Amino acid sequence: MSKFQSNNQDYFKPENINSFIELIEKEESKKLFNIVKDFHPSEIAYYIQAFSENHRKKFIATLANDFDPSILVELEPNFLEKIIDEFDLIVLSRAINELNSDDAASIINLLDLGRKNKILSKISSKNRISIEDNLSYKENSAGRLMQSEIVKIPIDLNVGHVIDFLRKKKKNLPEVFYDLFVIDSDDILVGTVTLSKVICSSRIKKISQIMKKNHESIHASIDQEEVADIFRKRNLTSLAVVNDKKKLLGVINVDDVVDVIDTEAEEDLLKLAGVGEQSFYGAILSISKARFTWLFFNLIAAFVAAYVIKNFEETIQKFALLAALMPVIASMGGCSGTQSLTTAVRAIAMKQLTWSNAFRSTGKEVLVGFLNGFIFSLGSFIITFFWFDDFKLSFVIAISLLLNLIFGSFFGAFIPIMLSRFGIDPAFASGAFVITLTDIIGFLMFLTLASIYLI
Amino acid sequence: MSKFQSNNQDYFKPENINSFIELIEKEESKKLFNIVKDFHPSEIAYYIQAFSENHRKKFIATLANDFDPSILVELEPNFLEKIIDEFDLIVLSRAINELNSDDAASIINLLDLGRKNKILSKISSKNRISIEDNLSYKENSAGRLMQSEIVKIPIDLNVGHVIDFLRKKKKNLPEVFYDLFVIDSDDILVGTVTLSKVICSSRIKKISQIMKKNHESIHASIDQEEVADIFRKRNLTSLAVVNDKKKLLGVINVDDVVDVIDTEAEEDLLKLAGVGEQSFYGAILSISKARFTWLFFNLIAAFVAAYVIKNFEETIQKFALLAALMPVIASMGGCSGTQSLTTAVRAIAMKQLTWSNAFRSTGKEVLVGFLNGFIFSLGSFIITFFWFDDFKLSFVIAISLLLNLIFGSFFGAFIPIMLSRFGIDPAFASGAFVITLTDIIGFLMFLTLASIYLI
Repeated sequence: MSKFQSNNQDYFKPENINSFIELIEKEESKKLFNIVKDFHPSEIAYYIQAFSENHRKKFIATLANDFDPSILVELEPNFLEKIIDEFDLIVLSRAINELNSDDAASIINLLDLGRKNKILSKISSKNRISIEDNLSYKENSAGRLMQSEIVKIPIDLNVGHVIDFLRKKKKNLPEVFYDLFVIDSDDILVGTVTLSKVICSSRIKKISQIMKKNHESIHASIDQEEVADIFRKRNLTSLAVVNDKKKLLGVINVDDVVDVIDTEAEEDLLKLAGVGEQSFYGAILSISKARFTWLFFNLIAAFVAAYVIKNFEETIQKFALLAALMPVIASMGGCSGTQSLTTAVRAIAMKQLTWSNAFRSTGKEVLVGFLNGFIFSLGSFIITFFWFDDFKLSFVIAISLLLNLIFGSFFGAFIPIMLSRFGIDPAFASGAFVITLTDIIGFLMFLTLASIYLI
Repeated sequence: MSKFQSNNQDYFKPENINSFIELIEKEESKKLFNIVKDFHPSEIAYYIQAFSENHRKKFIATLANDFDPSILVELEPNFLEKIIDEFDLIVLSRAINELNSDDAASIINLLDLGRKNKILSKISSKNRISIEDNLSYKENSAGRLMQSEIVKIPIDLNVGHVIDFLRKKKKNLPEVFYDLFVIDSDDILVGTVTLSKVICSSRIKKISQIMKKNHESIHASIDQEEVADIFRKRNLTSLAVVNDKKKLLGVINVDDVVDVIDTEAEEDLLKLAGVGEQSFYGAILSISKARFTWLFFNLIAAFVAAYVIKNFEETIQKFALLAALMPVIASMGGCSGTQSLTTAVRAIAMKQLTWSNAFRSTGKEVLVGFLNGFIFSLGSFIITFFWFDDFKLSFVIAISLLLNLIFGSFFGAFIPIMLSRFGIDPAFASGAFVITLTDIIGFLMFLTLASIYLI
């Protein structure tokens, strides 16, 4: 049993899905509706994503007009894009009207032009403007991530004024907010103050006295990856977004940043594994397509390796055992390369590894490769010697293994650093790339040494 | 230029480190101190981690008694553990006294027994009790993550009482807080209320009327990974931690959860790459040790593959070309396996892939493997045919490649699902594992088919 509780209801159980499918198949939509209506939107989103197409459509029809717009926000964007036509205009219009501007904009953005215009014509002009504003920013920028719903406070108020102001305006405020943004008469951001600071201060205290003057803000154009890094480093809950003139445009809250952190971590992970832009819920064809690129490069590279080996055809004919031992060298180099590569890519993403410590880090990786290389080349020397009782062969294995481990860790560290130096995403140096490189070098080295000393 | 601004100071520049090192070497500590004193603790932590040992010691001495305890919290735990003896007892005691209980406990935990006891004897008994409480919970549990500094409100108050109470007690409250926790006379959690709700309600409103009764809470024993998942799914800013009787123990804030999300993502990434518990800032020896395990398994596995190939020694002697083409089959299978594996491990971590959709997902992966397998086996058929003009050889290549891609995606998906089913961390099925499996199967299949049809 999970020990997370929402009052008495246990945190959600994915295995419930089977009983839901049963209800859907028995057409007992009323019963199903009563079960899920108290669920958190993210849980309902989970089930929608896990159902088969047929069950999903029936389930969405069950919720019909009681469909909570927040569920749309909780659906994975790629998935929502695929199924958005299953929702009727009433549900979507209500969603656009009720959601925060950033969420509303990301949903509008998925619709085809016809439905988009139909919905935009139905909503208030204030909402329309903030949605259009949002969409005018670059994808993955702070401007897209921010919501325009924000609590602005003129600098000349005192705490009492602010509390009275909030009580009076509560209908027009965001549902939850943590920080107040202090502006001057030109809408320029001049400070921030946390709600806890306001509530703990006496009514006559001036806002200008309790606000944080050395406040943080971010330009609307900067990339969401940098936004996440700032939240992470500064432990922020919200961050003001401004334009060139420092005019306050909106706010980014930490829950949106958590999504960004998840997405960025996933992207790095998938790229390293040579998986392109895919979604777990994607269609088979689009997943196959996303993975095609790296398989393609890998095939070309593998045939290059084959070409290298083919040049040693005679050597192998004379000493077929070499064919058996070749993969040992290649796979150990690949393993060492992948380890260094992954470490470097992650450290670059976390801004631990930069150009200023690039050489020191690469040096460290090479030393690590040498240390383990030494131990494992000794190990493989011993195994080979006892297996084949051939000193020269064991020696060639040991030397090639040591060198390939060192090469692996060098390339693994150096390639992402150089890519990042030239503004290329370091995670693009997928594992397949480094593995191929160590394969080719390993084969070449081993077979060359073998043809010199063993034949 | 970065467009994040802390008032007029630009967001931090890692390349500044060179000018700092210069100042340190010129012994101009006063100048350096004046530069960094307005920096955010996380930035100072960055430089401390990036300096060489010698520069670091001098830099810490420069800050001396003005050392801001929050810097300790921003240092990476593995790194702090390594260098904690460089701080003197005065700095550490002050840190323990000023920091929140969770942070204080994690620092105390790094000290040797002698220094630990010296510090514990110097701090207030209230602080000592909350630190000891914290350390009594399992590592990586909600109990360790929570801070005992929390704002509790008796249920019978109204908004006016609460505001007066907060104003009076402000010295004893956490520096920043977002939610108030409503308790009954037995300290049992009965509801939560956001600060924004309190501040927007009139003074005579009863807390019991505005609080969220269907509130969330979590048991102190649950794992931090599940905590992160709840914050992620429910977009929480803080979450109450309770014991078996629902007595309120503390609160977990979202900034601590961001650290957990980063750590968990990093762990999965590093494990998949066969890198054990290492830190980017770790010593060469400890990094080498962390990577040793998978290199060791890889060496054993590579020799098993060598043993498989050795059984086909005669076949290879007769047809040495096979040795050149073997790695094509193996590496394509490994590539496909890694893609499926990574997708599955990430989906399990994000709770998208569970036992209830395990079979459907595995089926999908196999289909993806089949689709790409078909295309690439056709491709390799053509390449081989034009290269060697040998229909039978091209056919054997194509069939082995297709089968190995299908096997790769099957194992890649199935192994982590099964591991997770039996409670083993699925990321433990490192890429090296799947690659080895597809290597061995690929060699076996290709060489068997070759010895049947080509010799």
